[in-house]
Amino acid sequence: MEHPHPYSPADLRLPGFVPLQLSQMEILLPYLIISIVIIVAVWLISGMYGGRLSKTDRWLMCWFVYTGLTHIITEGAFVFSPRFFSNQNPSFFDELWKEFGKGDSRCVARDPAAVTVSGINVLLAGPASLLAVYAIASQKAYSHTIQFTVSLCELYGMLVYYATAYLDGFNFWVSPFYFWAYFVGANSSWVVMPTLVTLRSFKKIYAAFQVEKMKTT
Amino acid sequence: MEHPHPYSPADLRLPGFVPLQLSQMEILLPYLIISIVIIVAVWLISGMYGGRLSKTDRWLMCWFVYTGLTHIITEGAFVFSPRFFSNQNPSFFDELWKEFGKGDSRCVARDPAAVTVSGINVLLAGPASLLAVYAIASQKAYSHTIQFTVSLCELYGMLVYYATAYLDGFNFWVSPFYFWAYFVGANSSWVVMPTLVTLRSFKKIYAAFQVEKMKTT
Repeated sequence: MEHPHPYSPADLRLPGFVPLQLSQMEILLPYLIISIVIIVAVWLISGMYGGRLSKTDRWLMCWFVYTGLTHIITEGAFVFSPRFFSNQNPSFFDELWKEFGKGDSRCVARDPAAVTVSGINVLLAGPASLLAVYAIASQKAYSHTIQFTVSLCELYGMLVYYATAYLDGFNFWVSPFYFWAYFVGANSSWVVMPTLVTLRSFKKIYAAFQVEKMKTT
Repeated sequence: MEHPHPYSPADLRLPGFVPLQLSQMEILLPYLIISIVIIVAVWLISGMYGGRLSKTDRWLMCWFVYTGLTHIITEGAFVFSPRFFSNQNPSFFDELWKEFGKGDSRCVARDPAAVTVSGINVLLAGPASLLAVYAIASQKAYSHTIQFTVSLCELYGMLVYYATAYLDGFNFWVSPFYFWAYFVGANSSWVVMPTLVTLRSFKKIYAAFQVEKMKTT
């Protein structure tokens, strides 16, 4: 027996689809609360370093812990569960991705471009984000380079994500609400934050080369 | 009337396909010769700067002119001619891409991921490559950052290119010859060179931060 699915386009075939069992609030509220707890925890722990780290560095650590865990855990649950929509006993993340599918059905349809971008995030950007946290905390000489690298990869990923959606028909959301809330809104942090970090890291690297130049002349 | 096409998979539909009019040699030989002429020209011109530039910098200028022009002109001809395979009077580049399609039919099929990666190359990586040439020649403080950025984007693009091919069925070449010669061989420079440039730029940026650190302590 097959349940009809709620996604767009309607002709998308999802054999064995198991309908959502949690409400939108039961999915988003816990996710939001845990996210905030993690960010506040990193802020407080980084404060205990004794004033050595600037407030900007502490915010950046919050961001890189958050983006790193999102890539590894949340996107990992998506990439490594190709049939998450048909699990008879769905996990919290199965439910989360079935909910997100209302804003972009390519995640349930296993669109190659969406899976590729998430796969790169899980395997490369995620671990590199956590390395960035360590690099910021211990003020390594590669700190800005790793921040720049991760953020540039995240931006490239978002570009692929949106451009392929556009070229593929741009009809993957149930309604304008889910378009704005999920497809645009839920992804917006990964456009805004990487842009800010990329610009900041670029300036820091530029400054370092100017110091090097002055020293050698 | 529709001509059958030579591509794989055989069920690919290409309405109005115009068969190749040039032979493999008539396409590859001029392309190869022009590429070599451009690289040699950049090598000679960069040598006239009077010994200020190292041999490595001159090689890098050759590479960035070559990769920049490839992105802008060759890939531009692909991205901005969506129906190149049906041109009644095909240009040289129409013929080139029809030939390359034997190694990856996704370019004739307008696969969203392939078009996206090439589109990013045409609009961003290409112009940025030419900016890198200028930055190397005039030894700008952002020279290594722009080289690092372009190369990282090229590597990310290749990863998307190959991963989506894998997830999409991995059956886009006519024969093992075209798999190795076009799908792997023709793209291999954009795996090898960006890897080398990325590693080199990373080391240069790392060194600059160490100089900056020494100066401030």
